[in-house]
Amino acid sequence: MTQFNDYDGFFRAELDALKEEGNYRWFKDLERRRGAFPRAINRQEGEEREITVWCSNDYLGMGQHPDVLAAMHAALDKTGAGAGGTRNISGTTHAHVELEAELADLHGKEAALLFTSGYVSNWAALGTLASRLPGCVVLSDAGNHASMIEGIRHSRAQKLIWKHNDLEDLEAKLAALPADCPKIVAFESVYSMDGDIAPIEAICDIADRYGAMTYLDEVHAVGLYGPRGGGIAEREGLMDRLMVIEGTLGKAFGVMGGYITGSAALVDFARSFASGFIFTTALPPAVAAGACAAVRHLKHSQTERAAHQDRVAEVRARLDALGIPYLENDSHIIPVMVGDPVKCRFISDQLMANHGIYIQPINYPTVPKGTERLRITPSPVHSAGDVDRLVEALGDLWSQCQLARQPIAAQ
Amino acid sequence: MTQFNDYDGFFRAELDALKEEGNYRWFKDLERRRGAFPRAINRQEGEEREITVWCSNDYLGMGQHPDVLAAMHAALDKTGAGAGGTRNISGTTHAHVELEAELADLHGKEAALLFTSGYVSNWAALGTLASRLPGCVVLSDAGNHASMIEGIRHSRAQKLIWKHNDLEDLEAKLAALPADCPKIVAFESVYSMDGDIAPIEAICDIADRYGAMTYLDEVHAVGLYGPRGGGIAEREGLMDRLMVIEGTLGKAFGVMGGYITGSAALVDFARSFASGFIFTTALPPAVAAGACAAVRHLKHSQTERAAHQDRVAEVRARLDALGIPYLENDSHIIPVMVGDPVKCRFISDQLMANHGIYIQPINYPTVPKGTERLRITPSPVHSAGDVDRLVEALGDLWSQCQLARQPIAAQ
Repeated sequence: MTQFNDYDGFFRAELDALKEEGNYRWFKDLERRRGAFPRAINRQEGEEREITVWCSNDYLGMGQHPDVLAAMHAALDKTGAGAGGTRNISGTTHAHVELEAELADLHGKEAALLFTSGYVSNWAALGTLASRLPGCVVLSDAGNHASMIEGIRHSRAQKLIWKHNDLEDLEAKLAALPADCPKIVAFESVYSMDGDIAPIEAICDIADRYGAMTYLDEVHAVGLYGPRGGGIAEREGLMDRLMVIEGTLGKAFGVMGGYITGSAALVDFARSFASGFIFTTALPPAVAAGACAAVRHLKHSQTERAAHQDRVAEVRARLDALGIPYLENDSHIIPVMVGDPVKCRFISDQLMANHGIYIQPINYPTVPKGTERLRITPSPVHSAGDVDRLVEALGDLWSQCQLARQPIAAQ
Repeated sequence: MTQFNDYDGFFRAELDALKEEGNYRWFKDLERRRGAFPRAINRQEGEEREITVWCSNDYLGMGQHPDVLAAMHAALDKTGAGAGGTRNISGTTHAHVELEAELADLHGKEAALLFTSGYVSNWAALGTLASRLPGCVVLSDAGNHASMIEGIRHSRAQKLIWKHNDLEDLEAKLAALPADCPKIVAFESVYSMDGDIAPIEAICDIADRYGAMTYLDEVHAVGLYGPRGGGIAEREGLMDRLMVIEGTLGKAFGVMGGYITGSAALVDFARSFASGFIFTTALPPAVAAGACAAVRHLKHSQTERAAHQDRVAEVRARLDALGIPYLENDSHIIPVMVGDPVKCRFISDQLMANHGIYIQPINYPTVPKGTERLRITPSPVHSAGDVDRLVEALGDLWSQCQLARQPIAAQ
């Protein structure tokens, strides 16, 4: 029997296959300009040039908000760089305690728990709940993102995937389960890649009927929707219908980290049993302080949310005027559909090379093969001139690549 | 059949069980004092008092090093708070690129890959390698910590646990496996809770003989050992024998984040396929910049490493003089063994209440039941007076609790 030992050969072959199908990823080396975002410097092959970012998840530009930066500078000056330990072993700082209180209040819950990222919060919370509730079955929306899928996989609980946002399918699956087993209905409010929004109230009604826990991921909604930035569930007056609301501090709040909110017992349970929470260094106090400042600001200020929605509507109207097709939805995400990984990358490369516009091509495995897209995320920090340049460049490229257009609405 | 719906009741019962066995965790609310660390403010029931931290993993006090803080302030001023996206979608900043190059150089490897934490680096890297190498078997040291265990579990690859640091057992298990399947030998250099060190060279010899990959976790060693802070493998001239060296930026480097280093192909493979890397917001540029400053400083400065070892030796000698028993090892970790969760917490509480000394009791599940301990981590920032106060307080408590002492060596 031949000994296997060509590990690098195996890795290279797998990478070559990725390249052949057009799904290999090259990262863009960026340096954002504080105060000038969405402007950034792109470094490539020793050259530097200024570009405009149109694909950031810093949806409101809070990553450069003066309050956020002042809070981070102050925390660095006061307490230093890192937390220096896990939450249990010297790593719980006052900044964490304050932020958790702020997040519990944001979602109208008894308690909140911070994780190092939104990914980890989903993975650890779902993994812990589903593995420790005896005989638990997880009902997972087909559109749920990777962190939820991996958390459920990790739990080894029984998983049933219900058709995306399909109430009938969810109910049929719940009805077929024994009444006496714990159940978790796990779903998102805004789905990141298509931008569509879940029928939260109807899902809660069904879950209640069958005694299922509701677990809602609001990572693409917190800060952006609801009068205090509590997300879609806040906007619709439904926060008390969810047993877990999960969110991130790394998108609209502009910094980093993730969290869950829920009852005191549920949060304490996750705090006490989630390996991905217990055995990891806490977020730096400066990160927690910056996120806290962002959350506080967006509880009171409507300016950013209003400007955000205006800018999104403007980009959509301009794309309509040129007949450039995008997926319609009720959120802030504008997926311009290309449907081919090679063309998608080509357009992205052309935008960067000839127009200084950066929109990352979204290919498999982030979206299903055949649905490759340019995911545009307009933000209050994009100027009217930025929108002009974006739309003109896309129009030119659409002609150049002979891509199909939508019928153009009467002006 | 009765419908299950008392989720909170279930959580509360599980938490009550934890409390009954003495393993419930209360977090200490701390605020470190930059420039005065190990001093911190402890807030409890509305009161504030200054305490001295003796259980931090900020082993060298790099969390308050002027270079680290200056780099973080500068990055905040230049680029803002967060990265604003995943590494692939607008989140790769120049700070990440520079830090990865610095880390690859630190370990003498072709490439490095950043993760949001050391936990995620182990979980994602081991999970990806073990699940994607066809028929892979993971040979995991019995002492490996949670993030490695969970990564292997997640991969669903076959796992064989070899006795802690036991070369014979490792070899017997490797010899019994078919030659043609990929194998990963996963282990740590410094084991965090006992402080013992793996026989790295002998493990590599055995792994080589059987064509196994070597995966070494150096999270409790990077920055602390080796002429440039590359860890135990650097100190022993063994870095080129390891296929993966994994480390953290959250302990001796004082900030936050984790990483792997290895061949260009291996690192690109993890970059391209690890869900926990792909689908998560990148570290804030300021965090990467701060960590980069710490890594660079410790590549050149021996001062902190030398002072660290001196302080550790001094604490050990003073404990010896009082006959206070601790686990002997060749690292910087001093586990003072209590062996009972309730006594362990009592001593910790007394230290805090009467002496302003904070040492978190280490109970199950961090260590096996019956091996509860006070894990002391002396650091260059502890003064001679700090050591006096620590040792005197422990001596008093040892008498008060009538705990056994070691025979006292001749003075």
